[in-house]
Amino acid sequence: MSSESKPRAKIPRNKDNDYTRDAAAARREFVREQTGATLEHVGSYSFDPSMLPGNIENFTGVAQVPLGLAGPLRINGEHARGDFYIPMATSEGTLVASYNRGMRLLSECGGVKTTVVEQFMQRSPVFIFDDALTAREFGDWITAHFDAIKAAAETTTSVGKLQHIGQYAIGPLRYLRFNYSTGDAAGQNMVSKATLAACEWIVRTHPDKPRYVLSGNIDTDKKHSQINTLLTRGKRVVAEAVIKNDVLKSLMGVSTQDLFRMRQISQAGAFMVGSANNGAHAANGLTAMFIATGQDVANIAESHAATTYSQLLDNGDYYWSITLTSLIVATYGGGTGLATQKECLDILGCYGKGKADKFAEICAGVVLAGETSLSSAVLAGDWVSSHDQFGRNRP
Amino acid sequence: MSSESKPRAKIPRNKDNDYTRDAAAARREFVREQTGATLEHVGSYSFDPSMLPGNIENFTGVAQVPLGLAGPLRINGEHARGDFYIPMATSEGTLVASYNRGMRLLSECGGVKTTVVEQFMQRSPVFIFDDALTAREFGDWITAHFDAIKAAAETTTSVGKLQHIGQYAIGPLRYLRFNYSTGDAAGQNMVSKATLAACEWIVRTHPDKPRYVLSGNIDTDKKHSQINTLLTRGKRVVAEAVIKNDVLKSLMGVSTQDLFRMRQISQAGAFMVGSANNGAHAANGLTAMFIATGQDVANIAESHAATTYSQLLDNGDYYWSITLTSLIVATYGGGTGLATQKECLDILGCYGKGKADKFAEICAGVVLAGETSLSSAVLAGDWVSSHDQFGRNRP
Amino acid sequence: MSSESKPRAKIPRNKDNDYTRDAAAARREFVREQTGATLEHVGSYSFDPSMLPGNIENFTGVAQVPLGLAGPLRINGEHARGDFYIPMATSEGTLVASYNRGMRLLSECGGVKTTVVEQFMQRSPVFIFDDALTAREFGDWITAHFDAIKAAAETTTSVGKLQHIGQYAIGPLRYLRFNYSTGDAAGQNMVSKATLAACEWIVRTHPDKPRYVLSGNIDTDKKHSQINTLLTRGKRVVAEAVIKNDVLKSLMGVSTQDLFRMRQISQAGAFMVGSANNGAHAANGLTAMFIATGQDVANIAESHAATTYSQLLDNGDYYWSITLTSLIVATYGGGTGLATQKECLDILGCYGKGKADKFAEICAGVVLAGETSLSSAVLAGDWVSSHDQFGRNRP
Amino acid sequence: MSSESKPRAKIPRNKDNDYTRDAAAARREFVREQTGATLEHVGSYSFDPSMLPGNIENFTGVAQVPLGLAGPLRINGEHARGDFYIPMATSEGTLVASYNRGMRLLSECGGVKTTVVEQFMQRSPVFIFDDALTAREFGDWITAHFDAIKAAAETTTSVGKLQHIGQYAIGPLRYLRFNYSTGDAAGQNMVSKATLAACEWIVRTHPDKPRYVLSGNIDTDKKHSQINTLLTRGKRVVAEAVIKNDVLKSLMGVSTQDLFRMRQISQAGAFMVGSANNGAHAANGLTAMFIATGQDVANIAESHAATTYSQLLDNGDYYWSITLTSLIVATYGGGTGLATQKECLDILGCYGKGKADKFAEICAGVVLAGETSLSSAVLAGDWVSSHDQFGRNRP
Repeated sequence: MSSESKPRAKIPRNKDNDYTRDAAAARREFVREQTGATLEHVGSYSFDPSMLPGNIENFTGVAQVPLGLAGPLRINGEHARGDFYIPMATSEGTLVASYNRGMRLLSECGGVKTTVVEQFMQRSPVFIFDDALTAREFGDWITAHFDAIKAAAETTTSVGKLQHIGQYAIGPLRYLRFNYSTGDAAGQNMVSKATLAACEWIVRTHPDKPRYVLSGNIDTDKKHSQINTLLTRGKRVVAEAVIKNDVLKSLMGVSTQDLFRMRQISQAGAFMVGSANNGAHAANGLTAMFIATGQDVANIAESHAATTYSQLLDNGDYYWSITLTSLIVATYGGGTGLATQKECLDILGCYGKGKADKFAEICAGVVLAGETSLSSAVLAGDWVSSHDQFGRNRP
Repeated sequence: MSSESKPRAKIPRNKDNDYTRDAAAARREFVREQTGATLEHVGSYSFDPSMLPGNIENFTGVAQVPLGLAGPLRINGEHARGDFYIPMATSEGTLVASYNRGMRLLSECGGVKTTVVEQFMQRSPVFIFDDALTAREFGDWITAHFDAIKAAAETTTSVGKLQHIGQYAIGPLRYLRFNYSTGDAAGQNMVSKATLAACEWIVRTHPDKPRYVLSGNIDTDKKHSQINTLLTRGKRVVAEAVIKNDVLKSLMGVSTQDLFRMRQISQAGAFMVGSANNGAHAANGLTAMFIATGQDVANIAESHAATTYSQLLDNGDYYWSITLTSLIVATYGGGTGLATQKECLDILGCYGKGKADKFAEICAGVVLAGETSLSSAVLAGDWVSSHDQFGRNRP
Repeated sequence: MSSESKPRAKIPRNKDNDYTRDAAAARREFVREQTGATLEHVGSYSFDPSMLPGNIENFTGVAQVPLGLAGPLRINGEHARGDFYIPMATSEGTLVASYNRGMRLLSECGGVKTTVVEQFMQRSPVFIFDDALTAREFGDWITAHFDAIKAAAETTTSVGKLQHIGQYAIGPLRYLRFNYSTGDAAGQNMVSKATLAACEWIVRTHPDKPRYVLSGNIDTDKKHSQINTLLTRGKRVVAEAVIKNDVLKSLMGVSTQDLFRMRQISQAGAFMVGSANNGAHAANGLTAMFIATGQDVANIAESHAATTYSQLLDNGDYYWSITLTSLIVATYGGGTGLATQKECLDILGCYGKGKADKFAEICAGVVLAGETSLSSAVLAGDWVSSHDQFGRNRP
Repeated sequence: MSSESKPRAKIPRNKDNDYTRDAAAARREFVREQTGATLEHVGSYSFDPSMLPGNIENFTGVAQVPLGLAGPLRINGEHARGDFYIPMATSEGTLVASYNRGMRLLSECGGVKTTVVEQFMQRSPVFIFDDALTAREFGDWITAHFDAIKAAAETTTSVGKLQHIGQYAIGPLRYLRFNYSTGDAAGQNMVSKATLAACEWIVRTHPDKPRYVLSGNIDTDKKHSQINTLLTRGKRVVAEAVIKNDVLKSLMGVSTQDLFRMRQISQAGAFMVGSANNGAHAANGLTAMFIATGQDVANIAESHAATTYSQLLDNGDYYWSITLTSLIVATYGGGTGLATQKECLDILGCYGKGKADKFAEICAGVVLAGETSLSSAVLAGDWVSSHDQFGRNRP
């Protein structure tokens, strides 16, 4: 596109109402003029743009992402109970098939158990003092005034509840990590507003009128971090199953003993390289579900983190768990109400209020299905050729 | 959905040709029967399903993700040069607007300089020995036979080139990290096949016929890791710009000095909490571009990692850089040729062979635009209220 | 030593009283017979071995580690106030001289301010359940029974006080991190006994009689970890100072502006490589002080971690802080009462009860002195040759 | 010490020869006058201070650290072969006894196999450019001129050999990590001088006369880091053993199956909290040996890092390995020639040139002994009470 090198015009906006088919069409035409690119398929959407003001600016059309179905997956959770068909939007071949295979394995072994064990959404302002001693005393003041701070924060929201405030000291700085429950929303905006209100209350009330910034970069929004792995961001969800050795052999062509042996190797590797996840590929399944169901897909940065734990049982079966430490999902707000996204949440019975825990459990169950499938494939396809040599009394 | 709790049927497939409108419609009808969910919008797609066999299984329809335009962004790269309009698919309100604002800032400051400084795609088999000494000797053998291993790997691909093999020792294990250049493909499948061929050659040739597994979990596919940050996965791309203090003040309402002062605080926070990225929110812009252009969106797990570096210059301007250490993108293969995805790559002049570096540079430029916008917003909106108290001779 | 290859005898012990000069001499003679090594200097110790039963087994003599003095260092702490001479035991040339130089800098700038901002010693048992849900409910039970658990723990100690219990969930496991204040002891043994008592109370009281192990490896005793950096182990201590530009130039030959510019580079490097400490060399000064004063020197593994934070002030002075996040020290118990060790604590006025905070503050002050000295040396000696080229409007 | 608060005098030095008994005595007297502390035991050393100029400044006396003996430990290494008595200097009760117990276990199981698998000492300058592209081109230039750079570096040393230069890019910065072999010295000073010479050659030769700083903080001297774990600092040493189930039961009172089951729990914990070492307590044994043998004890910061790997064998025996990734030791130079330190190296037959690999192997063997002892103790003492309930078909 030789025209790239010329200064280019601003993207046109419709002053009266920018969320119309016409405004979008005008932008597609603008793109064609400026770049030569024809946006025929981008313009082929089936919903009314007037629903989009909270979701996009300069609306031009849609990305059409292929959507497949996997399942049924049997889930025995607190909130998700039964057999589920899973909508997965992806362009990566074999992804749906691989997860599908894992879902069959889990289902034939009686299903996957899922539990949300903790949930918090954070905003982390930092207060700045002249020295560490003043910062420490401020920290004590915060602890002493928790109830009032909580009240100030919750004036901005009927849903969010301030659970606790973590404090982290560096030099003259006091980072506060406000932890909220946020109902069925992911809650990043909710907690920003609430924390801003809390901070303003603090500034008004504390004798020093301390300086602060609303984010000291430890929240850590849209970024994996060890603090998330430790202290949870979004939901901490466990999926666990007991894999029967005979079912595994029959469906996957590997034994539980081989899986467990290989696990020792992959754990050591993940530890050595500082991986965010010592399992296989949680990001694959989560991303496909996130796109399908209108989640904030950028949260894959945080949500893909996990810690696995397994044991080979004396009867030869295999206890397998994965703990997603930072799963950020919503069934209300954001993109969940958009046209295809709501339909996909409906497939799961997960649209709207009161469904976020159920949806989180389904996500975790899907992830575990994918773990079993890929781990088995690596062993069966690639290891098995040299499998006979795999001595049993060798490391 | 009370029917969830009953055992459910298998998802129907069309034996003759499953990638048809009819087969997809049958699955939507199946979903409706099983769950009650009507997939009207999911069924509203504009392309021929026969193009999908390499991208999806159990094709049922599409996710329609709203797509907005940002820009123009002036980029002064090696491969991307000129003004670009950026397609961003997201359902997160203000995202496009925020990036748009940063693009304006960068463009008014003369544009963003972008450079791909390194690129590798990896597959990391692990070889298993009886003890550490044998593993070490195997490592020496690998080094001595690099040329033959490279030849064996490259029999499987005309594009992929084996650059070097990293070796990592734990106990009796030797993890090998095969690093390839992969042209304009992301290359995960390419390097798997090549590495499998190389490993099979090793097993045939090495006197011990060593055992191996094709992945020892240090690749680290679909997972952030410190090894990626250090040694690159995909492309290592730098975006850098000199922000003029007066332009920043005019557009963003903050000064370079304030940004730099705040930077010291956010760097300390990111370090303390073990963040994958000491910048602001690379994942937001990358995810929106990835969905729009048919990237493997699950790679956000790796691609969002970054290291920033800045200096306040003596003339008051602000040198700002971000280095994406693991940006995994393609302009060929995967989802890049799908209907809307190809159109969006066309907007950028980035579809097809020979365009991956250009696309990577644009991604990095967009990320830097987002960094400037969000960092300024945090300061301007939230800090400025207490700004007058921000003494200049205090920490 | 050819005799190494023969099976060797057990080390002799004196049945009646093994902590005598004779028993030690017998072991030295045994070593001479077995290995040919003459332990003349090892046998030259000046104290009565009968004081050693809590400190060593198979006592054979001593390591004589050279001890130098640095200082005076002016400290303006909460607990340490005044000018201090610092005993440092090391065999690394220039270490004492380098710290001495930094102490002079800090003192001439008015001294170093020091603050203990938090302190906890941990023991972290793990409780094992059949599934994640039971583990979560157990966690709630722990929270509800905190007062009784605290009482049970504190039956074993008059000093240790249980402050709070962190809970960390993985699959069916519940890791509890018991955080105690431990007075002037480092407290690892104290908290082990207390936590064992607490766990036994839990097992007796909880209806499920849950299984547990006293350490789930998250304490993380004798190991650096990110959890320590975040949540403190031992004492979290800040040392901070404002370095005057003219004093720095005069003593070190570098400017504050150069230091701050270089700091941006070293911060980026430390972040990229996953360093435990983004400062220079805290371990050097701490180790020398630990050996001199009878600390558990293995705790350098944890104690060397730190996060730095600095700002260049508008008047050209330089605010510099280092936060030691896991400083484990004692002034009572362990090796603090041994002959030379007590003498060295006496130099600091830090032997015995009520002195641990003071000692921790001195440690932090010494560390900051070392940071200023080494950082300046790197710039002055190595950078300065090409210093004139260091353009001020370049990154 | 009320006198702390008054400004204090400089520490006296003897102009003619400061490394004399008189000069040291004068400093002890000075301390007594200034602080009231009597340094009787500090003054009780048995060697001639004239040997100390390369080891200490302001020599005042010694720290006498109690020294015990453990062993014999049977080692089947490349360099260390036979039964060894291990000198350990510590003031931590039970440490020697615990390691002793582990040594007996390993020896009765046939000994510990030890292997040095890699070794490098690093110095990591950073070169600073105007932009990332120039920095990248510089990197290519470095690769092309490796032989000449190596020659320049090695002009300063007859021992150190430059093996390779790692390159790490951030923005306009190029960090180079010079990796040397350093014979039997730890080599930090050696590689500093060599790298300085290399950098000066680069500045003279490269057309741009690039700016640099000798350390960009990625070496990472005296600090744990993930780059060390991955790419080795000092020596990467493996200790491995097959623990016989019956011997373990007899000596330790636990079974291999219990150890392996517990291992799954401790691995998960170590991963979640970001530990530098997923084993038990390497720092304990290493520190005691380092003090005894004149190592630079501050290197415990780096040396304590480790990755473990184990398998339960089909015959019930237990393969156990630990890989120390950053073991920094010397048998020549530094403190190794001091009075007691040399005697302790003599016990091991490890003093002087040609002994560093042997010593490193012994260190690793000792570490593994400590791992077996502590891990067993945790299980036997604390777990066994509730052991009967530990169902075999539960996680």
